[in-house]
Amino acid sequence: MSLVQEEMQSVELLMRSQAEDRHPDLESVLNHLLSSGGKRIRPIVALLSGRMLNADPERLVKLAAAIEMLHTATLVHDDLIDGAILRRGIATINSQWSPAATVLTGDFVFARAAKLAAETDSVTLMRLFAETLAIIVNGELTQLFLSRRVASRENYDQRIYAKTASLFELATTAAALLSPVSEEVVEKMRCFGYAIGMAFQIVDDILDFTGDQANVGKPVASDLRQGLITLPALFYLEANPDNPDLNQLLSENYLSETQISRLVGAIRQSGGIQRSLEVAQAYISQGRQCFDSFPDNPHRQALDDLARYIVERDF
Amino acid sequence: MSLVQEEMQSVELLMRSQAEDRHPDLESVLNHLLSSGGKRIRPIVALLSGRMLNADPERLVKLAAAIEMLHTATLVHDDLIDGAILRRGIATINSQWSPAATVLTGDFVFARAAKLAAETDSVTLMRLFAETLAIIVNGELTQLFLSRRVASRENYDQRIYAKTASLFELATTAAALLSPVSEEVVEKMRCFGYAIGMAFQIVDDILDFTGDQANVGKPVASDLRQGLITLPALFYLEANPDNPDLNQLLSENYLSETQISRLVGAIRQSGGIQRSLEVAQAYISQGRQCFDSFPDNPHRQALDDLARYIVERDF
Repeated sequence: MSLVQEEMQSVELLMRSQAEDRHPDLESVLNHLLSSGGKRIRPIVALLSGRMLNADPERLVKLAAAIEMLHTATLVHDDLIDGAILRRGIATINSQWSPAATVLTGDFVFARAAKLAAETDSVTLMRLFAETLAIIVNGELTQLFLSRRVASRENYDQRIYAKTASLFELATTAAALLSPVSEEVVEKMRCFGYAIGMAFQIVDDILDFTGDQANVGKPVASDLRQGLITLPALFYLEANPDNPDLNQLLSENYLSETQISRLVGAIRQSGGIQRSLEVAQAYISQGRQCFDSFPDNPHRQALDDLARYIVERDF
Repeated sequence: MSLVQEEMQSVELLMRSQAEDRHPDLESVLNHLLSSGGKRIRPIVALLSGRMLNADPERLVKLAAAIEMLHTATLVHDDLIDGAILRRGIATINSQWSPAATVLTGDFVFARAAKLAAETDSVTLMRLFAETLAIIVNGELTQLFLSRRVASRENYDQRIYAKTASLFELATTAAALLSPVSEEVVEKMRCFGYAIGMAFQIVDDILDFTGDQANVGKPVASDLRQGLITLPALFYLEANPDNPDLNQLLSENYLSETQISRLVGAIRQSGGIQRSLEVAQAYISQGRQCFDSFPDNPHRQALDDLARYIVERDF
């Protein structure tokens, strides 16, 4: 990532300046949000993609900041909705502030993300940006409206696209839109962003089973606890359709702590983890094929490394 | 308003189509939101301004829909924050849905508003749009952060600018941006939007004292009940600095129902109502001066009528 270290510093400064001249409490909460140690993978993907394709550097930095702030805003509202106490090991806004302040802080970060996106001076990019926000929110609403939990691959794929892959797709596509490239290249970058985004979320869902709290920064099996059936659990269910714990979760949306521990242990030891990892690896191969024809340069190499890192982290 | 009736029908259709292909529950909640009988004054101001200046008709309709949807989104989050049960006499989303669904519905409406704004194909407009959202949200956050209620004209002016006038200003400025006019005209339109927006909110604040629930669609003196000191109360305080009810409200942020009734009665009978109305009328005169030099056409006449209507409604 050292290739875009300088740009990343500009992105950080730009993000932190977004609450200047506003209420001091808002400034401090924005700093808290931004210092909670995210990996900044989405802006890095945008920066590397743009540098690879010779994007305009100034507009690229604005795009990268807009993407990370859009991501941050959705997290603020998500944590409020889930009642989460920790995010990346650090106190969430909603755990320290009122719901009202949390809703409005999220809205403010949305507003600044939109402003930064508008400052890229690309109307096409702005449309994509707004469309991606609608996809993310619609995905969450769909999940919320489901009266009972659905254990299907189709539902899972739609969910992780809305939740994660759509924003990776935006990062790579928008970076291409700021570059002197053909529509064909824009489409290839979209395909790359989609694929690594899908892989990224699958690996996150694996880590929710295999990681420990210190590593992941949130309680183990937090998805299961919320009644969310992710890919490892889906594969486990396929192999063990009569598992009483999983079936109770699906029908009653509730498991005791003992049942959760038992189910997590069973899924960890099942082939579901390995099979999920294979799906993630297949997405990465697909993604790397998308930019097969691109000229070889250090930024392309770094994107390639990053794609590999996505499936190799923390195992 | 019959001058832009046709355009207003296009705006309604466009707004209602924004949840198509999404979850059916989202579509029905959007319809509920849009059918709750708002006066649509913001899109009408945008349409009349644009028609007066020969704006591109298609982009103008998108702008008008974007503005009303931005307004709608902020109302959804506001009602959640205030715990309001009624808005315009109709059940609020938060009174029927979970906070999670309400937050996300607001986010979705924001997303669609941003998408419509982006479809005007004007980057300058898009920037203004995002900046206005930040102003509105920052205004609400500032209000929330105030540890005790502030009774000052400066605070009041800032609050009603953020809450209302900023969006009127956006409506008129953005309409001018879609028109073949000079920067000077854009600035005059900004000035007009600002002035009628300030007047509109002052009149709203007067009606909160003088109207009855059936007319206004929400409980009388809802501002006072929330500890908000609006212009009529400010003028009353100026004339009666030792009023015990008002001072208790300012220091303890609490009044009993008996105290509220007594205070509302006192303010109604004070000169505070008339003085507030005079401030609103002064804003309207200022606004009408802003487009003094514009050519006389039916749309200009309608904007003039609308400005007058703002201070004459419901008295």
